Amino acid sequence: MADINSHIEIGVTTGPIRGSRKVHVAAKSGSGVRVAMREIDLEGGEPPVRVYDTSGPYTDPDATIDINKGLPQLRREWIMARGDVEEYDAREVRPEDNGQLGPDRSGGVPGYPNVVKRPLRAKAGKNVSQMHYARQGVITPEMEYVAERENLGREMLRDEAARFEARNDGQPWGATLPDYVTPEFVRDEVARGRAIIPNNINHPETEPMAIGRNFLVKINANIGNSAVASDVANEVDKMVWSIRWGADTVMDLSTGRNIHDTREWIIRNSPVPIGTVPIYQALEKVGGIAEDLTWEIFRDTLIEQAEQGVDYFTIHAGVRLPYVPMTAKRVTGIVSRGGSIMAKWCLAHHKESFLYERFDEITEIMKAYDIAYSLGDGLRPGSIADANDEAQFAELYTLGELTKRAWAEDVQVMIEGPGHVPMHKIKENMDKQLEACGEAPFYTLGPLVTDIAPGYDHITSGIGAAQIGWYGTAMLCYVTPKEHLGLPDRDDVKVGVVTYKLAAHAADLAKGHPAAKVRDDALSKARFEFRWRDQFNLSLDPDTAEQYHDQTLPAEGAKTAHFCSMCGPKFCSMKITQEVREFAAKQNSDSYLASENIKRDTSDAEAEEAREGMEKMSEVYRAKGDKLYLPEGEAE
Amino acid sequence: MADINSHIEIGVTTGPIRGSRKVHVAAKSGSGVRVAMREIDLEGGEPPVRVYDTSGPYTDPDATIDINKGLPQLRREWIMARGDVEEYDAREVRPEDNGQLGPDRSGGVPGYPNVVKRPLRAKAGKNVSQMHYARQGVITPEMEYVAERENLGREMLRDEAARFEARNDGQPWGATLPDYVTPEFVRDEVARGRAIIPNNINHPETEPMAIGRNFLVKINANIGNSAVASDVANEVDKMVWSIRWGADTVMDLSTGRNIHDTREWIIRNSPVPIGTVPIYQALEKVGGIAEDLTWEIFRDTLIEQAEQGVDYFTIHAGVRLPYVPMTAKRVTGIVSRGGSIMAKWCLAHHKESFLYERFDEITEIMKAYDIAYSLGDGLRPGSIADANDEAQFAELYTLGELTKRAWAEDVQVMIEGPGHVPMHKIKENMDKQLEACGEAPFYTLGPLVTDIAPGYDHITSGIGAAQIGWYGTAMLCYVTPKEHLGLPDRDDVKVGVVTYKLAAHAADLAKGHPAAKVRDDALSKARFEFRWRDQFNLSLDPDTAEQYHDQTLPAEGAKTAHFCSMCGPKFCSMKITQEVREFAAKQNSDSYLASENIKRDTSDAEAEEAREGMEKMSEVYRAKGDKLYLPEGEAE
Repeated sequence: MADINSHIEIGVTTGPIRGSRKVHVAAKSGSGVRVAMREIDLEGGEPPVRVYDTSGPYTDPDATIDINKGLPQLRREWIMARGDVEEYDAREVRPEDNGQLGPDRSGGVPGYPNVVKRPLRAKAGKNVSQMHYARQGVITPEMEYVAERENLGREMLRDEAARFEARNDGQPWGATLPDYVTPEFVRDEVARGRAIIPNNINHPETEPMAIGRNFLVKINANIGNSAVASDVANEVDKMVWSIRWGADTVMDLSTGRNIHDTREWIIRNSPVPIGTVPIYQALEKVGGIAEDLTWEIFRDTLIEQAEQGVDYFTIHAGVRLPYVPMTAKRVTGIVSRGGSIMAKWCLAHHKESFLYERFDEITEIMKAYDIAYSLGDGLRPGSIADANDEAQFAELYTLGELTKRAWAEDVQVMIEGPGHVPMHKIKENMDKQLEACGEAPFYTLGPLVTDIAPGYDHITSGIGAAQIGWYGTAMLCYVTPKEHLGLPDRDDVKVGVVTYKLAAHAADLAKGHPAAKVRDDALSKARFEFRWRDQFNLSLDPDTAEQYHDQTLPAEGAKTAHFCSMCGPKFCSMKITQEVREFAAKQNSDSYLASENIKRDTSDAEAEEAREGMEKMSEVYRAKGDKLYLPEGEAE
Repeated sequence: MADINSHIEIGVTTGPIRGSRKVHVAAKSGSGVRVAMREIDLEGGEPPVRVYDTSGPYTDPDATIDINKGLPQLRREWIMARGDVEEYDAREVRPEDNGQLGPDRSGGVPGYPNVVKRPLRAKAGKNVSQMHYARQGVITPEMEYVAERENLGREMLRDEAARFEARNDGQPWGATLPDYVTPEFVRDEVARGRAIIPNNINHPETEPMAIGRNFLVKINANIGNSAVASDVANEVDKMVWSIRWGADTVMDLSTGRNIHDTREWIIRNSPVPIGTVPIYQALEKVGGIAEDLTWEIFRDTLIEQAEQGVDYFTIHAGVRLPYVPMTAKRVTGIVSRGGSIMAKWCLAHHKESFLYERFDEITEIMKAYDIAYSLGDGLRPGSIADANDEAQFAELYTLGELTKRAWAEDVQVMIEGPGHVPMHKIKENMDKQLEACGEAPFYTLGPLVTDIAPGYDHITSGIGAAQIGWYGTAMLCYVTPKEHLGLPDRDDVKVGVVTYKLAAHAADLAKGHPAAKVRDDALSKARFEFRWRDQFNLSLDPDTAEQYHDQTLPAEGAKTAHFCSMCGPKFCSMKITQEVREFAAKQNSDSYLASENIKRDTSDAEAEEAREGMEKMSEVYRAKGDKLYLPEGEAE
C-alpha cells in the first residue's frame, strides 16, 4: 500500500534520440515564442536535417526531468496574459474518482504529489477556446508555435530543392497545403473549424500542435490501465516512450480503479495533448452498471477531468436511440466501449441519449477550459462485414449536426472514424465525413483492411491508415500488435507508433506535402552513398535499423564500408551504379547522342554510325580498367 | 568439409498448422486430380473453414518427409502422358557452377544425393508450355488443379452466404473475377496470357498454382545464400518455413558460392514454383566481372537451371543501352542487381544488351522446359525520388514489346515491377503495365511508400503492396524487416510472409473476390462470440495470436471466457452488444416502430406516443434484471 501523494520512482527514457540534437527556433514574429525541434547531423558534408519533434523536454539534455514535479508550464504566461481566466477552488477528489478507494487507498496507486488546488476556468461570459480567438481575428502564441513547428520542413526544402529537384506533384484530394505556413494561415484554419489546437488551459505543459487536413498528418497513441492490469509507473513510462517515437497526442483510456490518479501523473508530465473518454470513468463511478449512469455523474466527471487538464474528450453523443437496433444484425454489433455503454443506457431507459440531449451543456464546459470535442464513433464497424453500414453513417450524420452546434459556440471539434473497412470502402468514409461534418478534422482508428491477422493488426490497420491519411484524415489513432488480444507493453507501443508514423508520412508524401520528401531524399542519398550511420539516424527508428544491420555485419568498419550484407563486397548494385554514373558523366556528347539515336529507332545507316561510336567508347572504358574511382586528372 | 552428395540432417518444420487438417479434394471432372487444401475446425457447431494451402506435404501427418529424397513427383505422370518430352543426359556439373569449387569441394555445401541425371526436355519441334496447350484448347491436369484450388472459397461461400449475406461489392479496377472458376476459365486466362502456371517439367514436385489478375493475389518469398552468409540447411528450412505461412512461390536469390547445389536441395524439396535470376550465377562464373559475361556463359547457365527444374527466370532484357544514361541523375541510380550488371555490361562494351538481342533464343529454351519469363525491372526506382521516371517507363515499354515476342512462341510471361513508389504514383504503374504488356501478370516488389523506415520496410512495402494488389497486381514479392539492412533470418521470413499474406488478402477483399470475405466473417463472428481458439486458428498466424493473448491472460479458462484483457470481465463492449442484440430481438414491433418514428423526425404527438412505448419496454427490461442470458422460456 502506497502513501497518499507520495513521491515515487518512475523510470522514463530520457536523452537525445541517437544522431539528433534538440534545437529551439524563435518564431519569426519576434514574440519570444521558441519552438522545439530535432536536428539530425549528417556526415560527408551534408547539411543537418530538421524534423518535427514530439518528444518534449525528455530528449533535451539541458532539461531537468522530475516526474514528481511535472514539466515546465510553457503556456501558463500566454494563458494568463489573455486576462480571460480565473483561478478557483478545485472540485474535491472523491473515493469514486479512483474506483471507490477508501481513505486508506488500499490497492491504489500513489497520488500525484503536486496537485493543482486552484485550476483555471474562463471568467463568466468568456470563451477561452482557440477557435474563439481565431474567429475574433486574434493570432495566439499557440498559433505562432504551430506555424513555426509545421514549417520547418519547408525551410529545409528551400535549401535542398536545388539538389533534389523536389517536386510538389502529389494528389491532395482537395486539401490545400500551403507553400509556407504563416500564423495567419493557422488562425484561419482554426477559425473555419478545419483544424484544432487541443490545449486545455489547465494543461499549460503542452507544446502546441495542430490537427487538420492542411497540416502534417498526426498520430495518437493509446495507453491506460485496465481492470486486469494496472500500474501508474508503466503508464507514465509508456506515455514518454510513445512521444519519443513520434506520438502527437496520447489518449489515456484507463478503466478499472485509479483512473483519476493515473491521469494526473500522465497530464503533469505530458508535453503533448491528452485525450480521454470520460464515460469510462463515469461508468466506474456507478459500479459498471451502464443504466445507472446519469447526466449529473457524467457532468461531474467532465469537470473533474477539465480541471486536471484533459485536452480533448471523446463524447459518444451520436449514439442515438433509434440507431441502436440498426446494429442488431451486424456480425460484430457494437465494438466501441463508449458506444455500447450508451446503447445499453438508451435501451434500458428507452430514452434518447443524455449525451445527445445535453450536448449544449457539455459545450458550455468545453469552452470554459478550451477542451476540444472528439466526437466518438460509437457505432463504428468492428469487422469487414459491418463496414459502411446504415448504423455507421446514421451516426456520422448526427456527428455532423453536433459539429455545427459546437461551432456555433466557437468550440473546437474533431470527428472519430472507423475501424474495420476494406480498402475499396475507405474513401467513402472520408468523403462522407468531409461533407457531413463541414471539413472538421477526421481522426480514425486504422482502419483495418482485413480481420484475419490478429497479432499483425498494426499492419492491417497501417495499410488503411496510410490510405485514409492520404485521402484527408488529419490524425491516425495507432493500433498495436496486441489489438484484439491483450494490453500493449512498451515494445508494442513503440511498434505501433513507428508503424503509424510511417503511415502518416506516406500520406504526407502522397498528398504532395511541400516538405515531406526531404527526409526520404536525404535518407536515400545516404543509402546510395553507403553512409550507414546517416541512414540509421535519418530513419524513424535508428536503434532498430542499426541493430538489424549489425546482426549480419557487426564490425564497426562495416558502417563505412561501401557494401552491405545482402550482396557482399564484390557484387553490389549500388557500387556498380556508381560506376555507371561516373562513366556516364565521362561520356562525350557524341557518344551520348549515339545512344539517343538508338532509342529513337534509327535507320540502319544511323545505327551503324552509332555502333561505331559505341565501340570507340568501349575501348576507352576498357583501357582505363575496371577502377571504381579514377585518379584526379585521369577523367576524360 | 562435407562429402560429395552426402546425406545431411536438415531440420524443417513439419506437422499441421494449429487447428487445421490437411484435406485432399478430388477435381469435379473425375480425372483423378486431387487438390491439397487446409481445413480449420471450429467450435460451437460452426462448420469448418477451408483455406488455400501452400504448405505442401510438410503439414500432412500422413506424408513421409525425407529431405535427402525430395518430395513425391505429383506431376510426373501428367507430363509423361502428354508424350511430347524426352529424357536426355544432363549437362555435366562444373566447378564454376558452385563458385569455382574444386573436386574436393572445400568450403562447399554437400551435394544433393539424389540428382536427376536424365532430365526432360521437349522433343524436337514441340512446345511444352501450359500456354501452348491452352492455345491448342487443351485443359491440362495442371489447369484442373488450379481451378479446384482457386475455387474452394467459392464453394464455402455457397454454404455461408445465407448466414453472412456476403456481398460481392468490390472495386475490381477492370479485373473480371468469376463467380466460379472452371478448368476452362483457367485455360482461357492462360491462353490469353493473363495468367501463368509456372511449372518446369523438371520440377514435377510442384502443386500447380496460377498467377493472374483474375485469381487470388499471390505472394513470393525470397531466400538464398549471399557471399557473406551461406548455409544450405538454413535455406531449405527457410523455404519450408515460408510456404508454411503462405508463400505461393519462392525465389532462390543465392549469390556467392554453392549456388548450384543450394538450388538443387531447394527445388527437390519444394512443392511451390521456384524462381531464380540466372544472371547472378552467370556473374559468379566470370569471377564477378560484369563485362566478362557472354551470351554463351549465360545460355549455359539457363540450361543448367532449366535441367534442375527452375520454374521461372527473371530476365533483365529490358535494360537497354540507351536507357542507362537516363539513370545517371537519379538519387539512387540502379538498385536492381541484375539491372546494374547489365547496365555495366552495356556501358563497358557500348553494345546493346545480349539479353535483349538474344531474346528469341532464350524463348526457345523457355518453351522446351515450360519455364515462365519474369521480365525483370532492372531500372526500377530505388527511392521515392526516382519513382515513375523516364528510365523506369522506357524499360516497361520494352518489356511490353518482349512480352509479345514471347507470346508469339506461346511462352508464359509475367512482368516485374517496383520498388519505391509514393502512394499517389502507384496506380500509374499498374495502368501503364496493363496497357504496355497486354495484361500479362504484374509481379511487384512492394512498392515501399516511403524511404524513411528501414527496419519496418515490410510495413512500408505492405502498404504499397496491398494497394497495387487491389489495382491488379497478380503476385506480390515480399519484403522483410531486414530489407536494406541485412539478410532475413527465419523470424524475418515469417513476418515478411504473413505481412504479404494479409496485404494480398486485403487486395482480394477490395477487388470483391467472391470468397475472400468468408474467412474474415468467420473470424469476426468467433471474436464476437468469444471463441478465442477459433479466432486464433482462423488467423494467418495462430501461434502469435495465442501467444499475445496469453501474455496478459495465460489461464486456459480465459480461452473460453466471455471477456478479454483489454476491458476485463465487468466492462466489455462485446458483452454489452450481446445484451443489446438480445434485447432488440425481444422488442415487440410496436416498440421498434416507435424507435423508427424518432429516426424519421416525427411530430411532437407521434414522439409522445413513441416515448410511452419506450417507457413500457424499459420497465420490461428492468423487470427482467441485468441478466446476460435469460433462461429458455423466459424470452418474450
